[in-house]
Formats: sequence, C-alpha cells, structure tokens
Amino acid sequence: MSAQNQAVVALTLGDPAGIGAELIARLLARPETTQAANVVLVGDPWLWHDGQAIAGTSLALEPVASLAAVRGRADTSRAAFLAVDAVQRDQVHRGQAEAAGGASVLSVLDRCMDAAKAGEIDAITFAPLNKFAMKLGGLRHEDELHHFAEYLGVNGYFCEFNTLRGLWTSRISSHVPLRDVPKYIEKQRIVDATTLIYRSLQKSGVVAPRVAVAGFNPHNGDGGTCGREEIDVIAPAVAALNELGMPVVGPFPADTIFLRARDGQLDAIVTMYHDQGQIAIKLMGFSQGVTVQGGLPIPITTPAHGTAYDIAGLGRANVDATVNAFDIAARMGRTRLP
Amino acid sequence: MSAQNQAVVALTLGDPAGIGAELIARLLARPETTQAANVVLVGDPWLWHDGQAIAGTSLALEPVASLAAVRGRADTSRAAFLAVDAVQRDQVHRGQAEAAGGASVLSVLDRCMDAAKAGEIDAITFAPLNKFAMKLGGLRHEDELHHFAEYLGVNGYFCEFNTLRGLWTSRISSHVPLRDVPKYIEKQRIVDATTLIYRSLQKSGVVAPRVAVAGFNPHNGDGGTCGREEIDVIAPAVAALNELGMPVVGPFPADTIFLRARDGQLDAIVTMYHDQGQIAIKLMGFSQGVTVQGGLPIPITTPAHGTAYDIAGLGRANVDATVNAFDIAARMGRTRLP
Repeated sequence: MSAQNQAVVALTLGDPAGIGAELIARLLARPETTQAANVVLVGDPWLWHDGQAIAGTSLALEPVASLAAVRGRADTSRAAFLAVDAVQRDQVHRGQAEAAGGASVLSVLDRCMDAAKAGEIDAITFAPLNKFAMKLGGLRHEDELHHFAEYLGVNGYFCEFNTLRGLWTSRISSHVPLRDVPKYIEKQRIVDATTLIYRSLQKSGVVAPRVAVAGFNPHNGDGGTCGREEIDVIAPAVAALNELGMPVVGPFPADTIFLRARDGQLDAIVTMYHDQGQIAIKLMGFSQGVTVQGGLPIPITTPAHGTAYDIAGLGRANVDATVNAFDIAARMGRTRLP
Repeated sequence: MSAQNQAVVALTLGDPAGIGAELIARLLARPETTQAANVVLVGDPWLWHDGQAIAGTSLALEPVASLAAVRGRADTSRAAFLAVDAVQRDQVHRGQAEAAGGASVLSVLDRCMDAAKAGEIDAITFAPLNKFAMKLGGLRHEDELHHFAEYLGVNGYFCEFNTLRGLWTSRISSHVPLRDVPKYIEKQRIVDATTLIYRSLQKSGVVAPRVAVAGFNPHNGDGGTCGREEIDVIAPAVAALNELGMPVVGPFPADTIFLRARDGQLDAIVTMYHDQGQIAIKLMGFSQGVTVQGGLPIPITTPAHGTAYDIAGLGRANVDATVNAFDIAARMGRTRLP
C-alpha cells in the first residue's frame, strides 16, 4: 500500500511506570504494523529506549520534527518518531502511579489531539494509562474519554466500546451505581448508543453490521412479569432504529445473548450496564480485548487491560491486545482518507 | 459399594413432551449410574418405553411395588422401576406445554417427596420440566422450588444453586426486576445464602469449601464512588460469616470473580442478582450445568437446561448435565446415611 493510501496512526507509550513502552516496542517489531499504516510514535526518547531494552528489540525509527511531517514521508516501512520531553527518567518509579507520569500521558495525548484537529494524523492508539496518576497529574474529568471529548469539542453522543476479536460491545450506562442504572434506560439514549456503534463498525470496515440490543431484567423481563424496561423502553428503541434503516435486533436475554455472539452471529451488542458486558467479555478473552473511544472525530483505541504495574519491566507483557487496538485504529483511520 | 452404603436416588422423567425420558434412558445406560447409587425410576411405563426407543436403549429395570421397597434391594446393579399412572399417551403432544403433562410432573414429584419424608429415598434428580405446563396443571407457586419447600415444610432459607463442573453459584435475588435488587441486598440474607451454599458444598463432599461473594456495582463500587452496597452491606456480611467460622472471601468485582473460578481458585460464588451469575455460567458451559435445590431436607437436582421441545423425539439430547445432576444427588444423598 502506498503511503498516500495509508492512515497516519500515532502511538503513545502510556503510563511510564507500566508496561506501555514494552508493548509499543513489541508492536513495532512486527512487520505487519508498518505495512498497515503510516505509523508515528510520540514519546520520551529515554522511555522508548527503556521499552526496547525490556522487549529485547533494537528498532531504528525515522526521526521527525513534527507530526505535520509524517503524512508526506516517502518510505513508511519504518515508523516515524517524534521525540518529546514529557517526563524525566528520575521522576518515574516503575510500578507506581505518580503525578509526573500521569501529567506526561496527558501532555502527549493532547499533542496528538492537536495534530488530529489539524488533520495531520488519522487515528491514535495509546498504551495503557493509569487514571489515578492522570488525576494526580491534572486530569479534571472522570476518565480520559471525557477529556478527549471536551478537548476535541464533541457535542454528540460518545461512549467507550469494548471489543474482542470480531465482537464489539457498548453500554448505555457505565461507571454508575447499579441501583441508578434504570435512570439511564431511555429510548433516545439507546437509539444514540446503538447508532454510534453501528456507524463505527461501518467505519471499521463492516459493511452491514449485525447489532443486537440486550435486555435489562432476568429472562428479558419474562413478558413484563419480571420488569418492564424491555417492553416500555428497549423494544421501542429497537423499532425506532429499524425505522432509521438499521436492522438492529433485540432486546435479547442478557444471559444468552453472548452465546450468539460467540457463535459468530453478531458483530455488536449494546448492553444496559457495565457488568452485563464486562462479565462476558472478560470470560471470552481478557488478554485480547480492546477499548475503542467511540463518537470522537478520530478513532482512538487502547488495549482493554491496564498498566500491569506488577509485571512492569519484567519483559512478560502480552502484546495481543495492543496489536488488536492498533489494527482497529489503522482500519478506522483509513476510512477518514479521501 | 454394598446396597447399605448407597443413597437411594429417585429419578423422574420430567415433562412428557420434552427430552426427559430420552435423557433418563441415556443416564441409566451408563454402568456408572447404578454403581454410584441405589437408583429407582418413577414414571409412566409408556413414557419410559418411548424414551428408551428414542435413545436406542433396551434396559430391563427391576419392578418394585413401592418406594419403600427400594432401600432393601439385594442387587442394585439394575435400577428399580416404580410404575405410576400419571399421564396417558394420548394426552401428550411432543413439543407442547400442556396441562396434563404439567400435572403429571407434579404428581410424580409429590410422590417422591412423600417417600423422602418417610425416609424411603435420599435424593431426587428430575428431568427437565416446563413451568408453564405445571402452572396449567395446578402448580400454585412461582416455581418448583417454592412448591418443594412448602411441601416439605421448610422454614429456613432456601434457594437454587447453579453448578458447573466444580463451581457452584447461588444468588441472593432471582426472578425479580433488576431495579428491585438493591432491596434484597441485606446483610442477613447474604449470611444465610452463603451459609447455605457453604454447608451444601460440605454435604456434597467438599470438606473446606472456598466460597467468594460477588460485589454489586461496577468495579466493586470503586471505594464507594460508584455505589456503596459493598461497603455498607456485603463486606460486613463477609465479616460476619468469618466470625461464624466460615473463611468466606469478598466482595470481589463481578467482572473478574469468574476468572478466578475458572482458574480453579473457588468452589462457589454467591452472586447478588440473576444475570451476574447466569451470564458467566452459560458462557462457561451451557450444556453441562446443574441446578441444585438448596435448603431442602433432601437434595433435589436437575439439569440446568430445559425441556428442549425443539429436539424432543429426535434422539439428539445431550445427557451430560443430567449425568452431572445425578452425580451430585448421589454424593449429597450419601451424606444423609448413617
């Protein structure tokens, strides 16, 4: 693929006290990575050097002076490298969530988003970060997604997708007490969330996404005898989606909908609450999962697992989810190109 | 094992329009079945004959005139058969939930419970039944468990366990709207439910059960920022259980507790609501699961799957869950013997 048809995908090293730099070294060591996109790594040189040492790689990247210089590169078989000075080596203690590390994650991501707004990059994959460290380092939002959305000026519906191999999930409520979830079960919210995952799947290359909506109550409410959200809210939302031209199905009982997905019958499931999807996704493949930040002007992806402080520096990090995260970013980034 | 040391386990054929008779024929065709217990089948002769024809077996059982006659049998290498006249062949239409079939299930189970009360049998395994048919046929309770409990005069805590291979689960709320579940999250209820599963596991032969309690909110409430049930109710319940001498652990986040169980670290999980456990159990092995009716004076077990009307009569029923259900009944039944 020529450079002109490739998406520019920015990579970041994540929390400097975790396994992020090791993961990015392993990702870039795969020849498929630079075949799939025009890749640029944004990070502190000392941290990248550390990551290579831990992963046992010795890749030579192509230095660039700015993210604006990446798209025009003649040879994209090597990744580009934009050196930044975000955190000092002596500020970082492996395995510890600290303000300096958290602040560096924010500053690098903000730099990438500036480039996205300027049209210089098409997608971002970031290595695992630590929310607590980022809050110590200046994050004012509940999580990085809300920071991204504000920074990028998003007004529409946005939410996180959890993806595992071919299956994407989203949820209409997330980090809220389970007793409060019924408040979130609103027709328009379900329509918005489902539309977003449907369109995002199309952007990722799935032409006719097979999307199902989960019920809320045991046995899907059992005809209303065991809860009425399915009848009063979810089924009408599915009908509205169908009228909008999306052949979405559901609601289906939560305890069997993932069996259909595992059998390959579905591309996406819209869940009603956090654990409804997370119990299933984690059982189906914890080390493979990817988080896609949905509803932003550019695709931003990350492995679903965390910084794994307990194995930081040991050279044992599993790169599978990072590879999957990058693949989705590269695919979705391409659909932004003319 | 001599007949004196064997539990007397009664089997029933379940809903006559489903796969029950086929399953029982397959179960009795295994030599291990009559080695594990002194087995008696209670059912209509025509239905048993049908089940054998579908399963392709031709077992000769030992006729008995009453359940009182089973314990004293000299040779238990063949199962005993108590013929009853519960339903006529022309009242049954394969694949249909009907009053006559439902009534027959009730009458056979009641006969077994009479024998249990008289000390003639030690455990019951029933083939799948259909609640709707049973309600048409006279069941006045919401499900068979509540019928059993009333019939057997149970005053204490009782609930259904869902088991899968070595893992047992119970829940402190079941077929109730999810929005009402917070009302069920009470300290005493958690203590009672956990004590019951702990003691039941001991009865089944697990000397020192490793039992964990699940949290309720996403990320276990995240230190109280995302719901307080863990701090206010569940953790105090676990502490109370520890004081009672049961080394129960938890609460653990619902989306990772099943990973520990799958890794073999736990014998049982007490869940807070229906789908918390069912999503996981069904993903971990739908065709293997067993339901144990917990808290009754005798163990009663059944495969977790249903009547499978769609494949009734086709000879394709999978006997695995029925075998597992019988094994648990035989093991738990033995602990009742002197």
